[in-house]
Amino acid sequence: VIRISLDIMGGDHAPEEIFQGAYLALKEYEFHILLVGPEEITQKQLLAFPDWPMTRTTIVHAPEVVGMSESPSLAFRKKKNSSIQIGLNLVKDHQAEAFVSAGNTGAVMTASVLTLGRIPGVERPAIGTLMPSKHGYCLMLDMGSTVDCKAAHLAQFAIMGHFLAQSLLKIESPRIALLNIGEEEDKGNQVTLEAYALLKSNSDLNFIGNVEGKDILYGKADVVVCDGFVGNTVLKFGEGVTAIFMDFFKSEAKSSVLSLLGALLLKPALKRFLKTYDYQEVGGAPLLGVNGVSIIAHGKSSRIAIKNAIRSAVQTVSVDVVGSIKKALEAR
Amino acid sequence: VIRISLDIMGGDHAPEEIFQGAYLALKEYEFHILLVGPEEITQKQLLAFPDWPMTRTTIVHAPEVVGMSESPSLAFRKKKNSSIQIGLNLVKDHQAEAFVSAGNTGAVMTASVLTLGRIPGVERPAIGTLMPSKHGYCLMLDMGSTVDCKAAHLAQFAIMGHFLAQSLLKIESPRIALLNIGEEEDKGNQVTLEAYALLKSNSDLNFIGNVEGKDILYGKADVVVCDGFVGNTVLKFGEGVTAIFMDFFKSEAKSSVLSLLGALLLKPALKRFLKTYDYQEVGGAPLLGVNGVSIIAHGKSSRIAIKNAIRSAVQTVSVDVVGSIKKALEAR
Repeated sequence: VIRISLDIMGGDHAPEEIFQGAYLALKEYEFHILLVGPEEITQKQLLAFPDWPMTRTTIVHAPEVVGMSESPSLAFRKKKNSSIQIGLNLVKDHQAEAFVSAGNTGAVMTASVLTLGRIPGVERPAIGTLMPSKHGYCLMLDMGSTVDCKAAHLAQFAIMGHFLAQSLLKIESPRIALLNIGEEEDKGNQVTLEAYALLKSNSDLNFIGNVEGKDILYGKADVVVCDGFVGNTVLKFGEGVTAIFMDFFKSEAKSSVLSLLGALLLKPALKRFLKTYDYQEVGGAPLLGVNGVSIIAHGKSSRIAIKNAIRSAVQTVSVDVVGSIKKALEAR
Repeated sequence: VIRISLDIMGGDHAPEEIFQGAYLALKEYEFHILLVGPEEITQKQLLAFPDWPMTRTTIVHAPEVVGMSESPSLAFRKKKNSSIQIGLNLVKDHQAEAFVSAGNTGAVMTASVLTLGRIPGVERPAIGTLMPSKHGYCLMLDMGSTVDCKAAHLAQFAIMGHFLAQSLLKIESPRIALLNIGEEEDKGNQVTLEAYALLKSNSDLNFIGNVEGKDILYGKADVVVCDGFVGNTVLKFGEGVTAIFMDFFKSEAKSSVLSLLGALLLKPALKRFLKTYDYQEVGGAPLLGVNGVSIIAHGKSSRIAIKNAIRSAVQTVSVDVVGSIKKALEAR
């Protein structure tokens, strides 16, 4: 059975929403959970769930907590007993197959790379995020782990994305695209021009060429590869758009009786829309390239996001994404 | 009086929407227009406007047209009589103070730099676009002119953005920010880390630090500086979001009578929303750093966008943005 170690102290809504999410996930998916954090907090939280499946649960004491804005490298050096560090140690020591945290993204990233190490041959790690698209999801990477990418890094992201998309999106031959400022082969900056050539020459990938920012949401590709600086900026811009949109509807609904009526009538549709395009509902993003499964969830994760992050962990483990990446990079 | 040379053949909706836009602009702003393109087309289009102010109009014959997907450098070398080239020559030869085109962006950019030359001291040109924000507009640059920016380029963009914001946004001391993946000074890639230091040390600028993608729409800064690859990607992603949003409402309105009623009630509000956040309504983006005023409008420009692009041209000329940039860079 797959064992997931969960950071109960990670995220803006920890620990309550983390426990709620874990509870929902335990109901829906088959796995064993290791709850990592201060034991007294775990005990107290569990009181709220009389039917929590204790036979599928292990409580792991981790007395320290890494704050959301603490320095990642300092946290790694000083807080050896944090829920992030002990949770990752469990994966390293083969007592768990995956780690899930909605905590300090930089701290989880740094600790993951330093604790689990990189897969041999991988030059840089990448965060792979499922972006909602018109026809389902599009896996985008890197979303902020490697912000000074060389072309060779992007080419490796494509290989890692290929296997993750097979696992998470269940697509046998995912369409891989390079995020660029034009569709033509000769468009782009130095790095994307070189990356295009590398991707084109890799016959193991279903490389469909360049896509532009507007194509991500339209589902033109299953995997979109980009530098972490670009991916992170697009992701945050998207969050801004969603937030502006919600603000607008709330203020409109208050502006007149007719608008209020209109907003009420459209509310179910709007909810569906926001659910589809709300990045927080997607759940966790696997940190690819590390020698083990580490799932980074959004700091604002709700219970649903945590449940989905755990689902991502279970899927990533069950189809052995790490093993596939290892094999592919060994062969090259 | 300010003379504007207008490319009547540029854009997906040329020449009709270009003439409609020019007509609206002539009604609203004070300037003289030079209509550049095949003379027979101009004559024919003008027939549709019995009250066109001919005393404020000069017809300039330019027999050739640059296609929307033609190679910019080839077009520059081969089509010496294109509406783009002749329109820019007018600025170079002091027969017009500004050029406006919704044509092939790359071709307009290339021809502008090669025809007008760069302002002494400017290393790279930048496209400055007004992005809608919650409290008005935010000037973002570069939006795709320079895609391999060094830190020094970004620092120059900030100086150019400062003067353009003074002119277009009428803000005396515009808040300048660096687009980055975190707000802290130590966040970013190599280029943004270096650019932060340069911007911080420039006491002539009101530098407020880093902003993230989500902050653009919230109006945290008046000027946001970024690499052209990043800016262009964000801009196109934003277009994708707007398009998806409109698709959604159209399909929802068809899905049920209640949704249709809701959509009808909210239609005026929605229109306001889309008008605010529709990038096409913003009009033109000045190409900064060239020795003259060249305004690049979106290829999909409607008449309103053309009208607004002409307004941008008039404003940019009347407060002498080019002269201010010259003086600022000379002094450094």
